[in-house]
Parts: sequence; structure tokens; C-alpha cells
Amino acid sequence: MGTARIDVEALVAGDRRALSRAITLIESRRAEDRTAARALLGELPKRDALRIGLSGTPGVGKSTFIEAFGMMLVEAGHRVAVLAVDPSSARTGGSILGDKTRMERLARARSAYIRPSPSQSALGGVARRTREAMALCEAAGFDIVIVETVGVGQSETMVADLTDLFVLLLAPGGGDELQGVKRGVMERADLILVNKADGEMRAAAAATVSDYAAALHLMRKRPQDPEGWPRAMPVSALAVEGLADVWDALTELAEVRRTAGTFDATRSAQARIWMDREIEDGLRARFEAAPAVRAALPDLGAAVSAGEMTPDEAAERALDLFAKDTGDV
Amino acid sequence: MGTARIDVEALVAGDRRALSRAITLIESRRAEDRTAARALLGELPKRDALRIGLSGTPGVGKSTFIEAFGMMLVEAGHRVAVLAVDPSSARTGGSILGDKTRMERLARARSAYIRPSPSQSALGGVARRTREAMALCEAAGFDIVIVETVGVGQSETMVADLTDLFVLLLAPGGGDELQGVKRGVMERADLILVNKADGEMRAAAAATVSDYAAALHLMRKRPQDPEGWPRAMPVSALAVEGLADVWDALTELAEVRRTAGTFDATRSAQARIWMDREIEDGLRARFEAAPAVRAALPDLGAAVSAGEMTPDEAAERALDLFAKDTGDV
Repeated sequence: MGTARIDVEALVAGDRRALSRAITLIESRRAEDRTAARALLGELPKRDALRIGLSGTPGVGKSTFIEAFGMMLVEAGHRVAVLAVDPSSARTGGSILGDKTRMERLARARSAYIRPSPSQSALGGVARRTREAMALCEAAGFDIVIVETVGVGQSETMVADLTDLFVLLLAPGGGDELQGVKRGVMERADLILVNKADGEMRAAAAATVSDYAAALHLMRKRPQDPEGWPRAMPVSALAVEGLADVWDALTELAEVRRTAGTFDATRSAQARIWMDREIEDGLRARFEAAPAVRAALPDLGAAVSAGEMTPDEAAERALDLFAKDTGDV
Repeated sequence: MGTARIDVEALVAGDRRALSRAITLIESRRAEDRTAARALLGELPKRDALRIGLSGTPGVGKSTFIEAFGMMLVEAGHRVAVLAVDPSSARTGGSILGDKTRMERLARARSAYIRPSPSQSALGGVARRTREAMALCEAAGFDIVIVETVGVGQSETMVADLTDLFVLLLAPGGGDELQGVKRGVMERADLILVNKADGEMRAAAAATVSDYAAALHLMRKRPQDPEGWPRAMPVSALAVEGLADVWDALTELAEVRRTAGTFDATRSAQARIWMDREIEDGLRARFEAAPAVRAALPDLGAAVSAGEMTPDEAAERALDLFAKDTGDV
């Protein structure tokens, strides 16, 4: 496919089919599609959305939450796009959000757009593609973009670095379920939601909220945020309880940051982070593609693992091979 | 200075003056000294020590702890080397361990060796120098190497990646003192010690230990370690209480890992991590040294910060400039 097939006017008017085609284009790895994707991204008007990252292990109720939360926002007049980041799909072939029946009502809502995670992808590519998909959703007039992820590899850090607010969804029960939450993820959360706070689980959820409130208090707070953040709250996506409080909390924090100037500063810093990572990835890719490096690297690595060579010696040899290779071109 | 001045035999026999000279050599950045340092490191016999990382914010009692803990080990027949990692000295001109009077008894002990952190250093260089200094201490027959750090930048992660066991020293008081402990550091700790558990502070220390025991329980445990790790314990460096328990805990964990094979596996993995980081640092250094890149990078970065250019475009342009530059050589 090419840009000719992307109707930019329809996209900017909010047409979901045009948006879908555009996202498919930016997901393509074919060189001509990349060129077309870049041209398209350059043409788009700049619009802005509140970017919300959402993470949670399987079974915690992410789909139910997004469906209920998204419907509430849509009914309040917002336009909500949901993107999925799932590097695991590269291995398993499965994909989160792949089954749209998980969010049947939201998928049908006119002011909502749900994009499943493509299968077969590496994390570096996922980050770029998600950034580009966010830009497309924003250009299409969606004012809230939710980026959903599961706890695989570095995907949560990536999503936290892509979004304005990062929400961690947990189940009640204190401790056990945290076995599935990776180190460092809790510390990135602006808001911890304990879901399933309804019926028999209500008390357990309240206890879990207290546990996390205490744990958050122990952790160092973010210097840019006022007292009381990050926060832990109960919510029931199934009983549709506490969702307005979640939205109030998120908008409150966003507003505080906008007033303090840290909202835009964080976005600038994120852009620099991604530039740096793209440079690092690019350097690494060029390094590993150099024939002499490719030939020598496995043996150097094995020698280092076995303690036969210091890490520094091995690195220096590999870098010398790279310099020779590129110098010869 | 050159290798001629390093008496390798004396070094291997455990002579502390020879060891000091050797460490000064590896700390030098002069090209001829680097060559000599590499030759020296290649000559050394392979010996092994238990490598213990120790972190704690200023005022927590690190020096008192190392003095008391080190004296106990020395009296039990061990040979103990203490190295300091302090990237802050580059900025402040000061250095931890700079004042040997902080550990007067240990500094005089025949079986101990204390090496202050050199001033003027960048983190990348600190890591390599610390690895080389550890190798020198091990060759000199020290069977326990303690690497001390303060919570500056990434120094704690670095020390955790350099050592077999990582200990975090805290003060009693529950919560407040954690304001100074950076995110992610607690999660790297194998053992959390709450110091000053004596006199009036005993109860407060016990409470803090319980808080951390609960927090550690909430965190995901390391898959390679048995139930009950990481652990939190009270200790009083001043009253010399609980130090034997600390040593028992550390040797127990080391033994468990040795039996499980994870001790050596972790060291191999650490060596590969350092090889990768050296390669990354080297690539980045070559990239930033390329004249065309150096000329263009500030403007590209500013454009990305201002939102005038996407991170990907900017990275691609910079990488193209690098390719041209190296191709021209």
C-alpha cells in the first residue's frame, strides 16, 4: 500500500477507517511504506491528547476496565483511542486486544477507536510504531489515548516513557498478585488502581489499597509532584464504581503538572529519551551488521562468559573490528 | 609511572604499597599507563574474593559499619579490601573514604586495605576502574572485597552489577530516610540492614525492619533465590551488635547460590553486561566524536525538545552524518 491510499482529509476529520489504514501503513516495514509513512506523518496537523498508560497482569480486568472507563469518557463527550503494546505477540503469536469482543460496547462506540497489537514485532520497533500511531490518533481528533500493555520485558517502562500518566491496575489480595508485577513498575505508576472492589472482594480491595498506600509512602515521591502522589485507589470496572474518581484523579494530576510546567517538560524529556534510544539502537544495529563484528562477536562473548577475556578487552577488539569495517566501506 | 615501578611479586604476596601503586596505575588515563595497566592485568594470577556491594545515604553510618564489620572479618582471619565508588567526587571535588580517620582501626589493620575514591571521574570510567581495582585486590590475596557507594546517579546499580551480594544500609525511622534512597535500589538489595539498632533507637529500628520485611514480601522475589530472600535485619555498628548475623546471612546466601550454580552464572552474566556496556559506550563515544555529528547534534536535540522534529527523524539524520563521517576516514 502507499500514501495514495491514505485519505488524509478523512483521517483528520476523524474517520476511523482512514485511521486504520494509516496505522497499517506505519506498521509496515517495507522501505517504500516507511517513506510513505514519514511523508504522511509530516503532513499531519499537530493536535494533542492526554496520553494514559495502563498496565496490569493478565486476569486483573484490564479489558473490563478499559471498556467501562472508555464508555464513561465517551459518554462525557471525549473521543478515546486505545492502543495495545504487546511485545509478547512476537513470541506467542497471540495479541492483546486481538479479540474485540473483550470490549464490545467500546468497539462499537462512534467516538472510540480500538487498535489491536500487531503480532511479530520487536520492542524497538514497537516503541516507534506506538509513537507514530499515537500521533495519528491525535491528528484524527482523539483527545484521550490509552496505551495498554501487559507486563512483558521492558514494555511497561516503554509505555511509561510514552505517556503523560501511567496507571497500574492490580487485583485485590495483598502481595500474591504482586508476584506478577515486575520490579520497578510500581515505582513508575502515578496511580495504582485495585480493581474488583465489589461484592465479597470489597474489603480485600480496601486492605490492598491501604497496603499500597503505605508502600507508596515508603517510596520516594517524584520531586515534581505535590504531596499525596502517587496515589492508590479502589475501583470496580464490573460494577462501574469509582471510575469518575479515577478520571478526577488523573485530570487533577495532569492539571497540577500543566500549571507547574512539568507536563510539557516531561514530554520534551521523553522526546529526547526516544531520540537517544533511536541513536543507540541505530548504532548497535550498524555495529552488529558489520561483517567482521558479526563473525567475531560470538567467540568474544563466549570468552568473556568463561572468564578467559575481560569485558573491556573483548569490547575493544569488537570496536576495532567495527572501525575497520566502516573505514573500508 | 610505568609497569617497571609495579612490583608484581610483592603485589601477589599481598604487599599493600605495591597494590596501591598498581591501583594508581589503572586509574591513570594516560595512554602509556593504560597500556601498562593492561599488561599488568594480563600478568596477574586469578584469585577469587567474595564481592560485597554496600550502599547507603550519608549519615546512615556506612563508615562505622564498614569499620566494625571489617574488623570482625579481619579478626576471624579474613583479608578485607574496601573500595569506594563515588561519581559525585567529579562534581564536588570531595570523595568518600577520603578521610581515613573515618575507619581508623581498619585502616591500621594488617589484613585490611582501604582505597579512597579518586576525584575527577565519570561513571563509565569508574566502572572499569573499579573492576580492575577488584581484580588487583583479588590478586593480592584479599578474600573479601567491599565496594562502598553513596546514592548518586547510577552508582548503586553499577555496584550491584559488579558484586556478588548487594547490601543496603538504612537508618531507623520508617519512611523518612527512604526519601534519600533512589527508586530501584531497594529492589536490588539482597540484604537490607537497619543500622543504629541500639539504645533509644532499638525499638524504632525493629519497627523499620518490620516495615521493610513487609515491603520486601510485597516485592517480587528473585527467581534464583529460595524463600525468605531478600531479607531485612537490624544491626548496630556502634554497639557492635548483629554483625555476626549479617556475615552468617551473607555467607548463607552465597552458599545457596554456589550450590544452585547461580553464583557463577551471575558473574558470567555480569561480565557480558559489562562487555555490552563497554561496546555501547565505545559506539557512543565514536559517534559523538565524529565532527559532523558533533556539529549537528545540539540543533537536532533542540528541535526534538521543541517538538519541531520527531525523535526518529533527528536520530536518523545524526546516524547518516556518522556513517558519512566514518566512511570518509
